[in-house]
Amino acid sequence: MARKIRLGAFLPGGGQHIASWRHPDQPVDGAVSFEFHKHLAQTAERGLFDAYFLADNLAVGFGGAREGGNDRVAGFEPTTLFSALAPFTTNLGFIATSSTTYEEPYLTARKFASLDLISGGRAGWNVVTTTGDSAAQNFNLDTQLPHASRYKRAAEHVDVVKALWDSFEDDAFVRDVQSGVFYDKAKLHETNHRGEHFQVRGPLNVPRSPQGHPVIVQAGQSEDGRDLAAATAEVIFTAHQHIETAQEFYRDIKTRARRLGRDPNHILVMPGVSPFVGRTLAEAQEKYERLTSLILEEDGVGLLNGLTGGTLDLKGYDLDGPLPVAPPTEGMKSRQALLRQIADENNFTIRQLYQWVASARGHYTIVGTPETIVDTLQEWFENEAADGFNILPPWLPTALDDFVDLVIPELQRRGLFRTEYEGTTLRENLGLPYPVNRWSVEQPVAQAAE
Amino acid sequence: MARKIRLGAFLPGGGQHIASWRHPDQPVDGAVSFEFHKHLAQTAERGLFDAYFLADNLAVGFGGAREGGNDRVAGFEPTTLFSALAPFTTNLGFIATSSTTYEEPYLTARKFASLDLISGGRAGWNVVTTTGDSAAQNFNLDTQLPHASRYKRAAEHVDVVKALWDSFEDDAFVRDVQSGVFYDKAKLHETNHRGEHFQVRGPLNVPRSPQGHPVIVQAGQSEDGRDLAAATAEVIFTAHQHIETAQEFYRDIKTRARRLGRDPNHILVMPGVSPFVGRTLAEAQEKYERLTSLILEEDGVGLLNGLTGGTLDLKGYDLDGPLPVAPPTEGMKSRQALLRQIADENNFTIRQLYQWVASARGHYTIVGTPETIVDTLQEWFENEAADGFNILPPWLPTALDDFVDLVIPELQRRGLFRTEYEGTTLRENLGLPYPVNRWSVEQPVAQAAE
Repeated sequence: MARKIRLGAFLPGGGQHIASWRHPDQPVDGAVSFEFHKHLAQTAERGLFDAYFLADNLAVGFGGAREGGNDRVAGFEPTTLFSALAPFTTNLGFIATSSTTYEEPYLTARKFASLDLISGGRAGWNVVTTTGDSAAQNFNLDTQLPHASRYKRAAEHVDVVKALWDSFEDDAFVRDVQSGVFYDKAKLHETNHRGEHFQVRGPLNVPRSPQGHPVIVQAGQSEDGRDLAAATAEVIFTAHQHIETAQEFYRDIKTRARRLGRDPNHILVMPGVSPFVGRTLAEAQEKYERLTSLILEEDGVGLLNGLTGGTLDLKGYDLDGPLPVAPPTEGMKSRQALLRQIADENNFTIRQLYQWVASARGHYTIVGTPETIVDTLQEWFENEAADGFNILPPWLPTALDDFVDLVIPELQRRGLFRTEYEGTTLRENLGLPYPVNRWSVEQPVAQAAE
Repeated sequence: MARKIRLGAFLPGGGQHIASWRHPDQPVDGAVSFEFHKHLAQTAERGLFDAYFLADNLAVGFGGAREGGNDRVAGFEPTTLFSALAPFTTNLGFIATSSTTYEEPYLTARKFASLDLISGGRAGWNVVTTTGDSAAQNFNLDTQLPHASRYKRAAEHVDVVKALWDSFEDDAFVRDVQSGVFYDKAKLHETNHRGEHFQVRGPLNVPRSPQGHPVIVQAGQSEDGRDLAAATAEVIFTAHQHIETAQEFYRDIKTRARRLGRDPNHILVMPGVSPFVGRTLAEAQEKYERLTSLILEEDGVGLLNGLTGGTLDLKGYDLDGPLPVAPPTEGMKSRQALLRQIADENNFTIRQLYQWVASARGHYTIVGTPETIVDTLQEWFENEAADGFNILPPWLPTALDDFVDLVIPELQRRGLFRTEYEGTTLRENLGLPYPVNRWSVEQPVAQAAE
């Protein structure tokens, strides 16, 4: 079977784009509307997406936006939301974010196992260490732990969770009414983990998952992040503006995985893409301008300043003029350099720069027709830059509908994307192997499955 | 309006009764079946119950049962399950258990606020401190904390959660597309808690709940438990075998609440009742015998031994003879005395004793017709023993159906129970007041509500 593009959908209800809540298509209370999230999930499933993905934060986050201007300041907790959405879909996966720094492995293992049980094997765990002091301050700390400490803790946390997910062997539950044997006690195992950060006896009080265990997802870009991802991740979300850097990242991850003895095909690299789709290029461009025109000047300027850690104060400058050559301060040079590079490459004014940056927040923005967009996706997919993409519709629901109604058919026409789901679990649809339970490795997988 | 009986339903999917999974009516995989839980929720709503209640444990619990013989060894995590059930119901409340000892207040506040948002204001939090070393060993400890420490931590945990639930004032969200003001930043508040056990800055990243905040539920019976309940609980679950002890507890709780300046009508006492309902007394008795006959002798004897901490070894005794007079050991005297009292009062053989105990596990078992059962409920309700009851159907789903189809109509006939839901939130149906946000106390409630 030919290799197919995998697709995730990043659908936060509140907007991905800084001004999306001001777009007339988007319900102004989308971030807190269960019905709206249900509609998004069902649209993603109509488009045969692999998974619905939600990022998360353990604090009120302003995301560089003006206080009072951010519609993502409050919303649902991801695993409760996804549990509620799962019964309204049948094949779509649900990848929720959960923190290895501020949550306990027993609770992490349990909530994802429960989501997996509710959804019939469609759960994924996006493993994050959670950056920022504002989250730390909600969990008994004054400042966050150092980067390296967070990643050491993360590696151990993931190990414990995976061990807990193996507590019951696949065929542990006999449920024999006559004999009164509900489960085979020889097939229930304690974890007995005693590590540097955690001490967990187990077993977990949830059965083995319908897909073995939930799919492990990560998005770390640092050295520590890449090491953790290569060792444990099955899907990696990443952000690149150019095919060259995407290729560098893709090859690096696959190489690291191979070195650790893993099959590089079992670790899927999925860059983020923010698409503005039109039947013509002019229509696509119109949609881009429609949305970006909704950015208040104060928010746009504030965003550039926020992205550079408060070192790019552009107040008083003509927004329709060029980005000033000499940066006003000396801090955060790399972020300033990135903005300078984008401005120079595109010959952007200050306004055009913040419009571009606000749109994808670091991900790759494509403005085009189904054909030109699929040309790009195909190029990345066929040249070791991507195994699939995480689609970030810049406003909702219509930018998602545009992708489903216009881009998906073009992908299918070229044989790059499924025309029906391959299976009912997330793992089956992603083409990832069923992880054999550590306690039943002697048995063939087929027999081990219930 | 006349005072009405409040009803909770304890519906664990797996059986309340030790042998219920062997009953032919009950699906053998009920504990892990989402469809079965959905059916139970919809049946409870058909019966106009106030709430669906789930107990919980943070370890594999054998509940005194034979290893391998317990169908509640594995199941769903309660808040994910209830989130998934909520959209399939419209008025039923969902009271989930969560631990103040092993969970963090920010996460507790968030998951219940999210369940409340998903359900439109139907969430309740059953506050537990979680007993037992087996749970402690899943959370970096060798043994559990002392009782008093757990309760001190619980009181602080509840305080922090309630403060976090007030982060956004009721009318904080303006969502004005023209001006770009999504929320009024003056109506978002940090918690800034620094206590003995927790340090939490806030604010919570979930809006204020549709019912102000989720209903606070407790079940503590000890001195510490009663103090905590009197101070913070709005609903109390309790277990009594006789109206006299239920009255003592009821009056004690109401007195403690009054002393703390609370309105005693705003703290509802709900004893557990396990009903076997028949159209005739003979039919009810038959149902009792049908279920209890399914208890394996090994499990019955093991249960009595387990309940007394392993001090009542009855192996070798005639199960159809009397409970031996001299207890084989001297430990756990109070539990042994309780079993002795039940055996003597009812003139029970060993078999009859374990059958009785297995049925309700400390709650009040009633075997009767709708009329005799309602006679008892009415007596308790009208004589300061109960504001309502937590119904524990001994097997599922038919014992729940019996209650809904036979007992509810008799309660309604006597004007003791609602004929339709009073409101859409759990709080409205329980007749509990809307808690005014601490930051907007100057404003009248009517204006503060969105």
